Amino acid sequence: MAAERTEIAGLGEFGLIDRIKSSTTIQNLTSLKGIGDDAAVIDIGTENLLVSTDMLLEGIHFDLSYMPLQHLGYKAVAVNVSDIAAMNGKPEQIVIGLAISNRFSLEAVDMLYEGIQAACKNYKVDLVGGDTTSSASGLVISVTVIGRAAKDKTVLRSGAKANDIICVTGDLGAAYIGLQVLEREKEVFQTNPEMQPDLEKYEYLVGRQLKPEARMDVIHELIEKNIPLTSMIDISDGLASELLHLGKSSGLGIKIFEDKIPIDSLTYDTSVEFKIDPTTAALNGGEDYELLFTIKPSDFELLKNHPDIHFIGHTHNNPNQNVMISKIGTVVPIQAQGWKHF
Amino acid sequence: MAAERTEIAGLGEFGLIDRIKSSTTIQNLTSLKGIGDDAAVIDIGTENLLVSTDMLLEGIHFDLSYMPLQHLGYKAVAVNVSDIAAMNGKPEQIVIGLAISNRFSLEAVDMLYEGIQAACKNYKVDLVGGDTTSSASGLVISVTVIGRAAKDKTVLRSGAKANDIICVTGDLGAAYIGLQVLEREKEVFQTNPEMQPDLEKYEYLVGRQLKPEARMDVIHELIEKNIPLTSMIDISDGLASELLHLGKSSGLGIKIFEDKIPIDSLTYDTSVEFKIDPTTAALNGGEDYELLFTIKPSDFELLKNHPDIHFIGHTHNNPNQNVMISKIGTVVPIQAQGWKHF
Repeated sequence: MAAERTEIAGLGEFGLIDRIKSSTTIQNLTSLKGIGDDAAVIDIGTENLLVSTDMLLEGIHFDLSYMPLQHLGYKAVAVNVSDIAAMNGKPEQIVIGLAISNRFSLEAVDMLYEGIQAACKNYKVDLVGGDTTSSASGLVISVTVIGRAAKDKTVLRSGAKANDIICVTGDLGAAYIGLQVLEREKEVFQTNPEMQPDLEKYEYLVGRQLKPEARMDVIHELIEKNIPLTSMIDISDGLASELLHLGKSSGLGIKIFEDKIPIDSLTYDTSVEFKIDPTTAALNGGEDYELLFTIKPSDFELLKNHPDIHFIGHTHNNPNQNVMISKIGTVVPIQAQGWKHF
Repeated sequence: MAAERTEIAGLGEFGLIDRIKSSTTIQNLTSLKGIGDDAAVIDIGTENLLVSTDMLLEGIHFDLSYMPLQHLGYKAVAVNVSDIAAMNGKPEQIVIGLAISNRFSLEAVDMLYEGIQAACKNYKVDLVGGDTTSSASGLVISVTVIGRAAKDKTVLRSGAKANDIICVTGDLGAAYIGLQVLEREKEVFQTNPEMQPDLEKYEYLVGRQLKPEARMDVIHELIEKNIPLTSMIDISDGLASELLHLGKSSGLGIKIFEDKIPIDSLTYDTSVEFKIDPTTAALNGGEDYELLFTIKPSDFELLKNHPDIHFIGHTHNNPNQNVMISKIGTVVPIQAQGWKHF
């Protein structure tokens, strides 16, 4: 061990990724795009191959006391597919690394794979390999997804130009508020095991947390209608963090309007019930797996009536000015969320 | 949770993999070969893409009390590259999922990546992406490697024909005996921290355990010399287990000769010192990452003088007869090792 000790928390997740990236060299011509986008881009001739990996750990990313194993399996695939969606690509294969402790029965493993298979079927992805091992502690699921995109249709985080319109699919903050509901019910249950969880009212929110969907429906539609996107990222860590990634990668600043951020009414009401500002939930909550992308102003007509795409602001030339115009007209800086886990 | 409970240990690792495989359906024409070989095979037009994943967990696959972090990083890449070698392919990209607890400093993460980068450089592989997260318990490293092989040169486990010659590279059992040495020294150190570890004599064995190399040197040579292999697998779980995989996949039986199994003299002597039969170490020890492959009898001339390739037996038509002829001439059935971790 080195004599010096620097805490990782001080650097943060994105600092650590930058550090790893800066010490990496590329030796193969087929490696078109490495660390720093939703997926790596590999040259396979007529198309681009897309590769992304995500790891889910018990006690960090999920709590088995309220996460059914089928949902966990489904989610592990969906969050990876979402990274391929964010490149405007289609997923085709996955490989899964699974570490399970001996407190898991074969029936439990079957349930997990039921969810994995259901997601594979839904997203038309083939499970083609993996590694299964035991774990000394919790459950670990590592999924790597492989997808493809046309060479001229692959959308990076870095392609936005000034004055592009910033678009968001679906609604935001629900997964985070759903997690608050689950945590509260868990606490109630631990205090009084006779109490039945009261989740029906919050079904949408809890579903967003436990069984998120990758927005492949939007991607298929955009590809079919041949709508050109200039940049894209999926919203896994919260809107604020992803806006800053998109801006930084494209060398631009971001301006969004609070009243344009899509928030479902149940998310709004429940957020208030938890004394959480609904906008904060949308900006920093994470795990929504919606898509954040930019289009040229001239392409606005193509999407303006889409019921599930929302226009929240635009890019501009000053990369040091990333702001949200609040509902009362004040200028609020957009701030990155730190790493929640460390 | 289901009412019934079946222990995974009863099914074993290979039983579990078979179970997962049987519930898997393939939907994409590009998925040429799924679960059941060293790597998945994906059609990318003029070539095959190869994908393999391996997960290493602290407390299961490595012990940080004697595994330096640089070596761990190197090994995590090497064992994955070995799977691409076993398809007669060349690795090109890796993505890494890393889960670290807050007891790790930034300096420790740097050391781990030093090893990863060293392996990337050695095997000409690019680190193109990953996922970094925290861990509530131990260190987890999940590596997925992507490689390529010519369509007519991709070697599966299933291609052997009866009377093919069974070949093994390098020597076997050293990594397992190296582990015994490390475990013994750890125990000595725990009893008396003043004692310095006595590893110099065992350097080769300890090196085989801590810093294994994928046999890309052999693969590059075989590809260059255009030597046709009929089937191949890498030796990660021990020779016995891999022989049975090869035989089963090819629908053949296996016959090997104990006196032909390559065992280094230091492995032999140290094995005896530990009261472990050297042949058992070679058959069931695992982690040697040598290559096991078959060639047609007519191609024997091409390899017979190779200093690092050993001919240990041949395949035959009866898949139910998998035997080793011992040094004293007795017929010993080859038996699969169960899953060590459960």
